[in-house]
Amino acid sequence: MALLSQIRSPKDVKELDIDELKRLAAEIREEIINVTSVNGGHLGPNLGVVELTLALHYVFDTPEDNFVFDVSHQGYVHKLLTGRQGDDFKKIRMTDGYSGFLAREESEHDCYGAGHAGTALSAAVGMAYARDQRGGDEHVVAICGDAAFTCGITFEALNNISQSTKRLIIILNDNEWSIDKNVGAISGYLNRLLTNPVYNKINEDLAQFVERFPGGVSFRKSVSKAKKETKDMFLESSLFEEFGLRYFGPIDGHDLKNLIAYLQFCKKQDMPVILHAITKKGKGCNIALDEPEKFHGTSPFDLQTGGSRSKGGPTPPKYQDVFGKAVLKHAQKDKRVIGITGAMPSGTGLSLLRDKLNAQYMDVGIAEEHAVLFAAGAATKGLKPVCAIYSTFLQRAFDPVVHDVCLQNLDVLFCMDRGGLSPNDGPTHHGIFDISYLRCIPNTILMQPADEDELCDMIATGLDFEGPCFIRYPRGSGTGVAIKDQPELLQIGTAQKVKEGTEIVIWALGPMLKKAKLLANMLESQFAVSVAVTNARFAKPLDSELLLEQSKKAKLVVTLEDHVISGGFGTAVMEQLQEAGYSTAVCRIGWPDQFIPHASDNQTLEKQYGLDENSIFDKVIHHPALVSMKERESESAISI
Amino acid sequence: MALLSQIRSPKDVKELDIDELKRLAAEIREEIINVTSVNGGHLGPNLGVVELTLALHYVFDTPEDNFVFDVSHQGYVHKLLTGRQGDDFKKIRMTDGYSGFLAREESEHDCYGAGHAGTALSAAVGMAYARDQRGGDEHVVAICGDAAFTCGITFEALNNISQSTKRLIIILNDNEWSIDKNVGAISGYLNRLLTNPVYNKINEDLAQFVERFPGGVSFRKSVSKAKKETKDMFLESSLFEEFGLRYFGPIDGHDLKNLIAYLQFCKKQDMPVILHAITKKGKGCNIALDEPEKFHGTSPFDLQTGGSRSKGGPTPPKYQDVFGKAVLKHAQKDKRVIGITGAMPSGTGLSLLRDKLNAQYMDVGIAEEHAVLFAAGAATKGLKPVCAIYSTFLQRAFDPVVHDVCLQNLDVLFCMDRGGLSPNDGPTHHGIFDISYLRCIPNTILMQPADEDELCDMIATGLDFEGPCFIRYPRGSGTGVAIKDQPELLQIGTAQKVKEGTEIVIWALGPMLKKAKLLANMLESQFAVSVAVTNARFAKPLDSELLLEQSKKAKLVVTLEDHVISGGFGTAVMEQLQEAGYSTAVCRIGWPDQFIPHASDNQTLEKQYGLDENSIFDKVIHHPALVSMKERESESAISI
Repeated sequence: MALLSQIRSPKDVKELDIDELKRLAAEIREEIINVTSVNGGHLGPNLGVVELTLALHYVFDTPEDNFVFDVSHQGYVHKLLTGRQGDDFKKIRMTDGYSGFLAREESEHDCYGAGHAGTALSAAVGMAYARDQRGGDEHVVAICGDAAFTCGITFEALNNISQSTKRLIIILNDNEWSIDKNVGAISGYLNRLLTNPVYNKINEDLAQFVERFPGGVSFRKSVSKAKKETKDMFLESSLFEEFGLRYFGPIDGHDLKNLIAYLQFCKKQDMPVILHAITKKGKGCNIALDEPEKFHGTSPFDLQTGGSRSKGGPTPPKYQDVFGKAVLKHAQKDKRVIGITGAMPSGTGLSLLRDKLNAQYMDVGIAEEHAVLFAAGAATKGLKPVCAIYSTFLQRAFDPVVHDVCLQNLDVLFCMDRGGLSPNDGPTHHGIFDISYLRCIPNTILMQPADEDELCDMIATGLDFEGPCFIRYPRGSGTGVAIKDQPELLQIGTAQKVKEGTEIVIWALGPMLKKAKLLANMLESQFAVSVAVTNARFAKPLDSELLLEQSKKAKLVVTLEDHVISGGFGTAVMEQLQEAGYSTAVCRIGWPDQFIPHASDNQTLEKQYGLDENSIFDKVIHHPALVSMKERESESAISI
Repeated sequence: MALLSQIRSPKDVKELDIDELKRLAAEIREEIINVTSVNGGHLGPNLGVVELTLALHYVFDTPEDNFVFDVSHQGYVHKLLTGRQGDDFKKIRMTDGYSGFLAREESEHDCYGAGHAGTALSAAVGMAYARDQRGGDEHVVAICGDAAFTCGITFEALNNISQSTKRLIIILNDNEWSIDKNVGAISGYLNRLLTNPVYNKINEDLAQFVERFPGGVSFRKSVSKAKKETKDMFLESSLFEEFGLRYFGPIDGHDLKNLIAYLQFCKKQDMPVILHAITKKGKGCNIALDEPEKFHGTSPFDLQTGGSRSKGGPTPPKYQDVFGKAVLKHAQKDKRVIGITGAMPSGTGLSLLRDKLNAQYMDVGIAEEHAVLFAAGAATKGLKPVCAIYSTFLQRAFDPVVHDVCLQNLDVLFCMDRGGLSPNDGPTHHGIFDISYLRCIPNTILMQPADEDELCDMIATGLDFEGPCFIRYPRGSGTGVAIKDQPELLQIGTAQKVKEGTEIVIWALGPMLKKAKLLANMLESQFAVSVAVTNARFAKPLDSELLLEQSKKAKLVVTLEDHVISGGFGTAVMEQLQEAGYSTAVCRIGWPDQFIPHASDNQTLEKQYGLDENSIFDKVIHHPALVSMKERESESAISI
């Protein structure tokens, strides 16, 4: 890392010549491959933007100029060039290390953070507007993947550009992939630009044009002259030109010399421009090139084989795979069942449906609102849509959930993977708000399974029920229980008694059941107290009959959820008790009212925020309801 | 109404000749003008689609064929033609009358309901897909205003059409208006289509073409032949053609004969088509033509003058106008303050800023996600954006609120008008979920003023505070209090003691304070009980110090909110008490976990759902905490 180790800030990049930049690019690739092979991370997207990011920092000056990276999972190169390399970079996505995304609090060079797609252009328009208001002369550059153009927000921003600013640079980083292979009309359109011979001619002409005006003549002033000279150079027909942008491209996004020339040219323009750069996801790493989908975001892998680095024996199946198999099975039996994803067939597990029963599978692109509305429309015609959208991404379709599905009480099943923490990704990806934002909406049924077998029961239950149902389940592996051949239909709103008890009543949602059982053991073994454990199964409707029966004479109800406590499952339990006029004390265990950072694993964050077994135990035994009970009833069996 | 009174179903429309259809159109206009002058309603949009809706019902067969109206505020004509006329129509938007929007439960001819913009094309794509899956031969027709094309969802749907279906009809009802005059690049693009002579030629050629193939030759088969004959007829450059649609237009949307011919032609096509029809908002009503913005959605008006029909003397200023004036004042003093709206300058009150200080005003179109992201971007550069978005429409930008503004703790002030009921509009417009869906997100400050003077204090407080602040306030008039010259900065998280008391503690949010005072009076006058009243001001953070102090020895805490009780303000109060280990009983008053229908006024719905004074009083005095108190303490001052 002879060159990389000397890059302390973007200024150092500007000192290099083209050959040195190429060597630096190779070193960056090596570093990113090495680190992600250990830590996991967004390998493919970062390898694709090495030259582009180098060229950007060569031409522009952050932090004065602003780079807004869409999603920002492709920000590793930017991090390496902005003082975040060496040992520090090696802890990326780990506890106390750098985020896998950009974050304003991490560096002055990160002017805007993200984790979800399609926000960059929109925020950049707001920034360009603010710059113009202030009379600033800095540059705002939005770097968007082609997948961002399947996102409606990007079009809302395109529509607003000419009204908002006279100067904005958009880099369309076109690698033909969302997380999976890109879909839809825009993708086809971009592909036609690549293969259209007229456009290739434009590209050549433009390269000459750029060379003829190295000082960067104002494009607007020279446009009529240029038009005469290279009359095919400016097509009015481009989609982007309809939005008032000057389009340049497509150009090779790995040709450093040309990239720098084009960016220098763009920098001089006095109108909004879009530079279409073609990049190769995973460039420089054969295993990533061979399987772009797998190495978009990868877990730690073997550098030679690309295989998993997981230690030890076989692990239980992932929830996503159990979901994928279950949906395929239902779809095979019932033609009305269709699976819908927003560009995440692999992450959600719907790839199985895609491969085996493509006619009942739909990938709409990164377009969660349309995904839900498509489902709503299909449901009105008697289909049974299964919307597989991560908990954090369903936030993007909140209004279609409320205004279309729930209000019209349509028969759509939402399967929310990543309900709970996504530890390496952090706050943009934790799915810990869904119960609160869905529970307040009428007509919602909300479930969370305690294990992967119960997930299958809930999928069957959700498909059987006619109306909006939501199932949340965590990232990663199940518990390893056997999965029944035939799922069992659950009665809506019924909990499962796991252990009888009278004094302390624990209601657990989902996999928190495991911690509930441990807690009951700890309480009963350390104090002579009788503890009930219930698997709630439904966050809405709650099994109020069982809850009230168990709570009537209890001293304390403890709720456990992998979700924020503001308005969550525990709050629902409190509301139910309150409505029945019960004054039983409730101790709610869940995530606090803070954004939870990223970390190496769930356990680290659980300890830090009081969700590990010992912290839970401590919180419960120090609850005032037990303390006062002890004071009042010194003869009681409980002695804390 | 000689003709209209005979129309019992769309079949009757098909029996009429062109002259009769024209007479029917005139009768429909008269009926809509008369009824909206009494009931209020979406006058302009409905007058614009009279011929279009007649032609649609003439050519297609609902309910077998499906009309998906975007927003569906333009569905009055459709209602009149589908068995919903006469005395029934006269109760539109009133208690027990028809909805002002389409609704699946209202008629089999309403295949899809709406109230928010931009959902129709998306849902129609899902319906067309479902039809194809089932092998059906019915038609799916999406009727979208040009404003829907400022909405990102519409583009997400466009991107997905060719993947989803081979057959879909889109009517682009272009009246050049959102709710206000349309903005943005798409609006400019559509306007260029209208004025481009090449397109006009196309239009003429196409009219001839349609006449040459009256039987409706399959367009796809005949396209090459047609291309030869009228070589300029099909431009590849159209924005819509990039999305795989065949574009026809623009045509006169009031010419019944041509409309019918074009629709019959579209019906025969074996590919997705878009028919661009130019209509005039308010056609046939001079006062609506003169002020399209005012008569988009109007309150009852005088038929002659267009003036308001409100009875009696002057009413207090509307919250929206107080807001508009306050923002203008701040913007005049501080250049960093900008006002952002999603196509609603009048409804939000930002029109004042637009007219007086346009440089600090931005209308992004019906694009709430972009509005919030634009604000987020602008905030990173030191501006102080005020996002004026109705409570129900902020649902559409939930993820930008979470992922961009709150996570990055950016300095954006959200002003949510229509927090509470929008009685004539109904469930698509009631803003009664915002506390629940915002309270669970870290970094949120949530306020609601008790009157318009306090609104001014809160706007000043929100602008002063650095971070995300949300203010909700109701539709309509304030209380008539005097507004201070200089607003007072409130300390974040402090409530206002309104009345001291010890046994029952009432915490009211916003204008519910009025009901709280009444309730306290009723309780104290009918029972010898001491009642405290507090103006909560903040739903988050709560004034926990005051709450705990007041609740410690109280028998009952009563919470009042114009919001659902699931996860709302009252629940926040409960959570706070629970966290402090208090077992004080809480009686939460608010809207139940149901979608609340439309009605003539708030009072009707309050009575129906238990939010009127008497119901509240009844609920409180029958609360178990008071009953048991009575039993246990027969000597107590309280005797119920």
